[in-house]
Amino acid sequence: MRRRDLLKGAAAIAAAPLVNGPLARIAPSRRGDVVDGARVNEWLSRFDAIGRTPTGINRVAYSEFDLAGRAFAIERIRESGFTPRIDAAGNILARLEGRESLPPILIGSHVDSVTDGGNFDGPVGSFGALEVARTLRETNARLRHPVEVVIWANEEGGTIGSKLAVGDTGTLDLDAMARSGRTHRQGIALVGGDLSKLATAERAKGSVHCYLELHIEQGGNLEKAGRTIGVVLGIVGLRWYEVTVTGFANHAGATPMDQRHDAILAAAKFTVAVNDAIRGEAGAQVATVGRMVPTPNTRNVIAGGVELTVDLRDLDAAKVARFAERFQRIAAEIGQATGTTFAFKRSASSEPAMADARVMDIIAASADSLGLAHQRMPSGAGHDAQEVARICPMGMIFVPSVGGISHSPREYTKPEDVVHGVNVLLNAVKRVDSL
Amino acid sequence: MRRRDLLKGAAAIAAAPLVNGPLARIAPSRRGDVVDGARVNEWLSRFDAIGRTPTGINRVAYSEFDLAGRAFAIERIRESGFTPRIDAAGNILARLEGRESLPPILIGSHVDSVTDGGNFDGPVGSFGALEVARTLRETNARLRHPVEVVIWANEEGGTIGSKLAVGDTGTLDLDAMARSGRTHRQGIALVGGDLSKLATAERAKGSVHCYLELHIEQGGNLEKAGRTIGVVLGIVGLRWYEVTVTGFANHAGATPMDQRHDAILAAAKFTVAVNDAIRGEAGAQVATVGRMVPTPNTRNVIAGGVELTVDLRDLDAAKVARFAERFQRIAAEIGQATGTTFAFKRSASSEPAMADARVMDIIAASADSLGLAHQRMPSGAGHDAQEVARICPMGMIFVPSVGGISHSPREYTKPEDVVHGVNVLLNAVKRVDSL
Repeated sequence: MRRRDLLKGAAAIAAAPLVNGPLARIAPSRRGDVVDGARVNEWLSRFDAIGRTPTGINRVAYSEFDLAGRAFAIERIRESGFTPRIDAAGNILARLEGRESLPPILIGSHVDSVTDGGNFDGPVGSFGALEVARTLRETNARLRHPVEVVIWANEEGGTIGSKLAVGDTGTLDLDAMARSGRTHRQGIALVGGDLSKLATAERAKGSVHCYLELHIEQGGNLEKAGRTIGVVLGIVGLRWYEVTVTGFANHAGATPMDQRHDAILAAAKFTVAVNDAIRGEAGAQVATVGRMVPTPNTRNVIAGGVELTVDLRDLDAAKVARFAERFQRIAAEIGQATGTTFAFKRSASSEPAMADARVMDIIAASADSLGLAHQRMPSGAGHDAQEVARICPMGMIFVPSVGGISHSPREYTKPEDVVHGVNVLLNAVKRVDSL
Repeated sequence: MRRRDLLKGAAAIAAAPLVNGPLARIAPSRRGDVVDGARVNEWLSRFDAIGRTPTGINRVAYSEFDLAGRAFAIERIRESGFTPRIDAAGNILARLEGRESLPPILIGSHVDSVTDGGNFDGPVGSFGALEVARTLRETNARLRHPVEVVIWANEEGGTIGSKLAVGDTGTLDLDAMARSGRTHRQGIALVGGDLSKLATAERAKGSVHCYLELHIEQGGNLEKAGRTIGVVLGIVGLRWYEVTVTGFANHAGATPMDQRHDAILAAAKFTVAVNDAIRGEAGAQVATVGRMVPTPNTRNVIAGGVELTVDLRDLDAAKVARFAERFQRIAAEIGQATGTTFAFKRSASSEPAMADARVMDIIAASADSLGLAHQRMPSGAGHDAQEVARICPMGMIFVPSVGGISHSPREYTKPEDVVHGVNVLLNAVKRVDSL
């Protein structure tokens, strides 16, 4: 149903004369102030057919559907008048030359998806960036800086393409199995990369003028606030823990309540306590127990063990560290009270990546000039922008996710909001050219 | 290690002159006051080798190991001077005739096991009953009533053999798949039963004088109280619920804490609340959340759903019903507070089965006459005795489980406690003969 809505919405926009109604204000001409909104929405509607399964979009990196999605993007780059290029890390690039010999303004996102995801997480920013470059080319708006469109490889599997492009290979195991069932090494070769020439894909600090990424919010803050544009303050830092709760399996009927070492009960108490702690303090910090695997997981046996995960995020690294420590104290107390033990293993962590203050001001000014209500907000999700922020000033533009839903077949962003976002990106690119 | 302990313990008892030490009091002669404790423990040690795997005893009903266990038992019946018989339901029987034409005293248990279980749950009562009949025969202690030893088929799969023997076929689906991968119908034929002649195995109300079952406690109450014999008050009634918690899956990073519909959090709150409720009232009632299966069960996605189970038991049927209702009220409140919904499906229920008051007195008197400390207690676990209680007076004798552990490779009962239990059974059989 959503998909039909989307197609109908896109068709309506494509067919609209763009002189009346809500889009009239932002698409008065092809003088280069605004993009061709119908075109970018049409690309998105056509892209929706690639990797669409009964359970959602499945363009998992290095899979056949990912290859098909990349081929579609490469075709759109070609028909937009650019020469597509694949760097050694497997990232897809298109370049519009500038008037001066300066580092490029880099804009883009990704086209791979999670398992059973939606069509907006990544593609909006990827096709939006291409539309911006095409509009600049078609309207002969030659900037001082070159503009490079980038479609990063394997964002959902751990921002692999952008990590490699900024020279971060230390934390990556390229022989680890990706969700496609192929290793990163195999996958990168498959999509046209060449790890033996990885140095050619690496961008040194200062070699990029600025990175801008348009993305769907993936949360419900903009919708709730009735605003169209999110000016991203930064991407939250993250810690992932694998927590093992060890109790003792015993007979559910014959074991008195005061003689149990119930690992499910201990895991439940921990889950509730983590939630209470994270909500007990003002701020945008989040913590999630998203996975829980008890043993033996049988109705008439008290659980002897539980494996669970904690996902903890905030824009303030010190706050993340403080909560991580607090969760471990809470676990020790619950272990004591329930006759169980908790063991923590940190399986991933990333530092917060802050957006550049001048770039945030430029995005806000761009939204203002288009008459779009905006607000500053953290990104709770990870993005390629967090990697690129290590080598250049970074900014991100969010557009609303209907119902705050993402990583779901029900993920949806209204066609008019897609157009608003792409126009802010175009406007911001022009403004950062003067920086 | 446990197994070696057991073998050592059994060997020590077998080798002991039985005139000194702790057993001297209860085994002064072969005049028929006490059983041959060394023999029953030797049977148990030898039986431990059948179905023993690295993860525990696996004599799952209708499996090859179950067949081997039954063959071992049949061989012991033969060598004890009885003619083994298999009834149409697959139960193994041995009969010692009485002086009068009266209904038999039925004694026994089962030899099948759970997956990855121990060697004591079932075999103690089965070989104990055979040892009692053999002692009666060897000492020419002919009772008024016949004594029948029974080894019930497939106790762990739902007291199948005893259910069929008391004519309860209404609640049974004989074509359902048992844990062995065979249907009950196939399994019963395999072990020598004949469902076309099921009526021949059925015992009418009043056709059995009394049923006595010796069993390990499977809990830690006796050990904790320092008592050797449990006089079972009855077998608790049980309700099983399958509970479906429905929330909404969303991004663990991008979804603010106050906009979540987290099914794992709701399930955790419910688990804690069930525990608080059941422990908040005096009594021996137990409730267990033993199974929890979240969806999608991924570290960085808020869970959209959880399937969990509740196992609720008490000797008082009204109390069981009251708690069942209370759990559903608690769930509704938690659903309200967390933006989730709870749906309950009752997947099984059984009424409490009470032991006969005179039989309980007889078991207590038997323990007293042997100088064994005892206490009355409910059985939290289900047993064949709960089925047989429908057709005749029933009593159960418990012996301690070390550490309260059962349904585990670490299940263990000390050889001396096995002997104490079998002696109480012998003594009680003689006393019920006068009823």
